[in-house]
Amino acid sequence: MSKTQPARGMRDFLPADVRKRNYVIGIIKEVYESYGFEPLETPTVENLETLTGKYGEEGSQLMFKILKRGEKLDVSAGEKGLSDLALRYDLTVPLARVVANYRNELPKFFKRYQIQPVWRADKPGRGRFREFYQCDVDAIGSSSMMVEAELISAVSEIFERLGFENFSILLNHREILRGILDACGIETQKQTDALVALDKLDKIGKEGVLRELEQRDFLTDSIKSFEKFINILEESFGVVGEAFEGSSDNVTNRIRRRDSINKATLESLSDFVGESESGKLGIESIRTILNLAQNAKTVGRIDIFPTLARGLSYYTGAIMEIGVDEGDFKLSLGGGGRYDGLIGMFGKEQIPACGFSLGLERILVVMDERGMFPAELQTNAADVMVTVWNEERIGESLKLANELRQSGLRVLVYPEADKLGKQFKYASQINIPFVCVLGETEIAENNVTLKNMQTGEQETVSREEIAGKLKNSARS
Amino acid sequence: MSKTQPARGMRDFLPADVRKRNYVIGIIKEVYESYGFEPLETPTVENLETLTGKYGEEGSQLMFKILKRGEKLDVSAGEKGLSDLALRYDLTVPLARVVANYRNELPKFFKRYQIQPVWRADKPGRGRFREFYQCDVDAIGSSSMMVEAELISAVSEIFERLGFENFSILLNHREILRGILDACGIETQKQTDALVALDKLDKIGKEGVLRELEQRDFLTDSIKSFEKFINILEESFGVVGEAFEGSSDNVTNRIRRRDSINKATLESLSDFVGESESGKLGIESIRTILNLAQNAKTVGRIDIFPTLARGLSYYTGAIMEIGVDEGDFKLSLGGGGRYDGLIGMFGKEQIPACGFSLGLERILVVMDERGMFPAELQTNAADVMVTVWNEERIGESLKLANELRQSGLRVLVYPEADKLGKQFKYASQINIPFVCVLGETEIAENNVTLKNMQTGEQETVSREEIAGKLKNSARS
Repeated sequence: MSKTQPARGMRDFLPADVRKRNYVIGIIKEVYESYGFEPLETPTVENLETLTGKYGEEGSQLMFKILKRGEKLDVSAGEKGLSDLALRYDLTVPLARVVANYRNELPKFFKRYQIQPVWRADKPGRGRFREFYQCDVDAIGSSSMMVEAELISAVSEIFERLGFENFSILLNHREILRGILDACGIETQKQTDALVALDKLDKIGKEGVLRELEQRDFLTDSIKSFEKFINILEESFGVVGEAFEGSSDNVTNRIRRRDSINKATLESLSDFVGESESGKLGIESIRTILNLAQNAKTVGRIDIFPTLARGLSYYTGAIMEIGVDEGDFKLSLGGGGRYDGLIGMFGKEQIPACGFSLGLERILVVMDERGMFPAELQTNAADVMVTVWNEERIGESLKLANELRQSGLRVLVYPEADKLGKQFKYASQINIPFVCVLGETEIAENNVTLKNMQTGEQETVSREEIAGKLKNSARS
Repeated sequence: MSKTQPARGMRDFLPADVRKRNYVIGIIKEVYESYGFEPLETPTVENLETLTGKYGEEGSQLMFKILKRGEKLDVSAGEKGLSDLALRYDLTVPLARVVANYRNELPKFFKRYQIQPVWRADKPGRGRFREFYQCDVDAIGSSSMMVEAELISAVSEIFERLGFENFSILLNHREILRGILDACGIETQKQTDALVALDKLDKIGKEGVLRELEQRDFLTDSIKSFEKFINILEESFGVVGEAFEGSSDNVTNRIRRRDSINKATLESLSDFVGESESGKLGIESIRTILNLAQNAKTVGRIDIFPTLARGLSYYTGAIMEIGVDEGDFKLSLGGGGRYDGLIGMFGKEQIPACGFSLGLERILVVMDERGMFPAELQTNAADVMVTVWNEERIGESLKLANELRQSGLRVLVYPEADKLGKQFKYASQINIPFVCVLGETEIAENNVTLKNMQTGEQETVSREEIAGKLKNSARS
C-alpha cells in the first residue's frame, strides 16, 4: 500500500464526493428540522467506560480504542493500562449520555438529529467502511406511539425527496417477537439466541435457522413451532414482495394493496401468538402506529414484517427498517426503534426514547448507481474564471474578480501569468463555463471580453454589465 | 467526574451551540467558495507513518494514537507494537497526502477548503480543547504571490462578514527572518533556536529572549545584534499598536495610516538586513503581496509584523496571522503561510502551496463574548407547535402538522395527550412563538385556534389560511 493512501477502510472525499454528501445531508437536515428536531453534536472520543457494555461482545471487539500517552501507559496492567478512551461507535449511546448529563438544560421532550461519523474496525467491503456517517433522529421523553408515526413519516419524506420510488418502512415489535417465541414454548433466556438465528433468515434460509436452533439445544417441540412460525413468515414474505412490486403504483392503489396485506399479516400473527400478553400488546401497538401513520406522509409505505428482529439488544418496543427495492431483495438503508431502557443506564431516571438511524454511505452508493443526483448539482469550482494578462496586470484581474464576487458569483482567477491559450485550456479542463479576458485594450476601454466555453462564442461586455450578465447565465 | 460527562477536554454541542457553529462555518464556506475553493474531507484516522515526523517532538507527544486490536497487539514491541494509527493532528498534512495521492485526478491548481475537527492531547484550558475545528483554505500548485494576496483577501472578507471591525492580517516572511538572523551573524543551524526564542517575545519579553540565547551558547556579538533587531521590532510594535487603534477609522484614513507605517517598517528592515540575499528577497516578496493586495478586499488590513515567526517548521515563504483587538493585545484567530516543501515529502514532485487556517473555537468564544451573533439566528426548535386534543384526535394533529410543513414551516406536535394548559406551558418554556389548537369544534368547523405566545392573543383562522398566516409571521 502506498504511503499516500488513506488508512485501511477509511476514505478521502474529493470535492465532487463532498458535494454529493452535502446534498443528501442537506435534505435530511431540512426534513428533520421541519419536524422540530434540533441539531446535536458529541465528541469523536468518549470515555471507554461510557461505551463499555453497550454494544455486546462484537461491538467491544470492533471498537477503536485510544492508546494512553507516555507516563500513563501501563503495559503491565493489560488493556486497562493501555486505554481509557475510544472512538464513538454509534450516535445513540452518546445521546443517552447527553440526555442524562443535561437533563435540566434540555426540554422535557427532546427531539434531536445528529449527523456525524462513527468508527468500527470492521472488515472493509463493498459499502462497508471503518469510518462512516450515521444520520440519527431520536425523540426523547415520550412513550406515545405518535413518536413512531412521526419518525416513519419523516424518514419517508426524506426518501421521497431524495427521489426514491420503491421503498418501504418495515415495521415489527419486540413484544410480537416475544409473543411468538412464548407461543413456540421457547424459554425467556433462550429467546435472544432464537432472535439472532431468525435475523439470519434471508442469509441462511429456513433450514439454516432451524439447524442453528438444534445446535443450541432447543427443545424439539419449540423447533417445530418455530418452523410453523417461519412458514407463516415466508407466506407474508411472499405478499410483502408482492406489495413491494406494486409500490410504484399510484398512491391509492398502493395504500389499498398494503392495507389488505398488513391486515392479513396481523391476523396470522394474532392467531399465532394466541393468548400471549406480550404478543397481544405488540400487535395492538402496531395497529396504533398504523392508524396514526395514516395521517402522516407514510400512506402506503409501511410493511408489517414479522421477521425483522434488529441486532441491537437495547430495543424494547417497535422496531423499524427502511428498505429499498434492489431487484430480488430489499436493501436496508437504515433502521431504528424504541429503546425505553438505555438512558436509564446513565442516569437515575428511566426516560422513554425512540429513534431512527440512516446509513449515509449506503444511500450514496445506491443514489450513485441509479444516477439519482440532480443535474444542477454543482460540479465545478467556479461560475467564471478571470484570466491574467501579465505580471503587471495581475492586480487588475484580482480587482475584477472581487467585483464579480460582490454579486454572489464564484470566481476563480488563473493563478499565474501564463499564455492565454494555456489559461483557456485550463478553464475548459476543469469545466468552468465562462472566462473573462482582461487585456490592455479591455482595461483601457473599461470592458471585458467574455468567452462562453461551451459554445466558444466571444463578446465584448462593459464592466458595468458583466456581473449581471454572468449572474443571469449562472442562474439559467 | 460524573460518568455522564464528555471525555476530558472534549465538548458536547447542544442545539444552540450547533446553530452558532453552523452560522460561522456557513459564512466561511460561502466566502471560500466565492474564491473558487472546493470542499475536501479526509478521514479522522490516519496511518501513523503519515503523521510521523511532520509536527516535531511536541506534536508527536500530543498525538492521540489508536490501540491495535486483539491479535495485532504486541506489547513486547513497545509503542510500535501498540499502535499504527492516529487521530488527525491538523488538516495540512492530510492535504499534502491527498495532493500526492490524487495528483492525476485533481486540477493542476487545486484550491480547497476543509472544515473538520483535529485532536491534540493538550492540557485543556480557556479556549483550548482536545477536539477542535480548524477551517483551512489552501491553494496548491502556484508559487505566484497572487495566492497570498487572495488568501489575505478571503480571510479579511470572512472577518468583515462575521462583523469584526478591529482586526488585521499580520504579515512576515521566513526569508526576512533568515536575512535578519544572517545579519546578526547567527549561523544557519542555530537559526531555528533563535526563531523559537523570538516567537516567545510577547510572553517573556526582550530580556527573556536574550537570556534564552545566552543559555543556548549564542555568540555575544550575535546576541548584541539580535538585541538591536528586537529594538527595531519594539519600535514597529509601537506603531503597529497605533495602526491597530485606528483600524476602526474610515477606510481611507485606515489605508493611509497603515500604508505609511508599513513603508517605514520595510525601510527599517531593509537597512537592517543590508546585503543579505534572503533578506532582500523576503522584503521584495512582501512588497509584491502588499501591492497585489491593494486590489483585493484587504485594503488597510495588512500589518508588516517582523516578529511573527509561526511555530511550524514547514513554512518557506510568507507567514501570516489574523489578529483581533483584545484591549492590550492582539488575539490570534488563525494563521498560515507558504510551504513549498511539504507535499514533496509524500510524492516525487515538489509542489508549491500556501494556506491559511482559522481557529473556529476561538472565533466562537470572541463572538460570544462580544455578542456578535445576529438576533435572527434560530434559537427555537420550531415556528409553531400543534396541540393534541385527546388520544383519539392525535391523528388530526399529525395531519395538520404535515399540512403546515408542506409550506416550509418547522412544526412540532406536542407528543402526549396532556391537559391543554400543560401543553401551552411547554410551548412557552421552549420559546415556540405560535401554538395551533385543534379541538373538537375546530375540527368540526375546519378551522384552527391560533395563539400568539408573545402577546397571548388568540384568533380563529380557517384551515386554508393558517399556513400562509404563520409563514408570514415566521418571515417577519
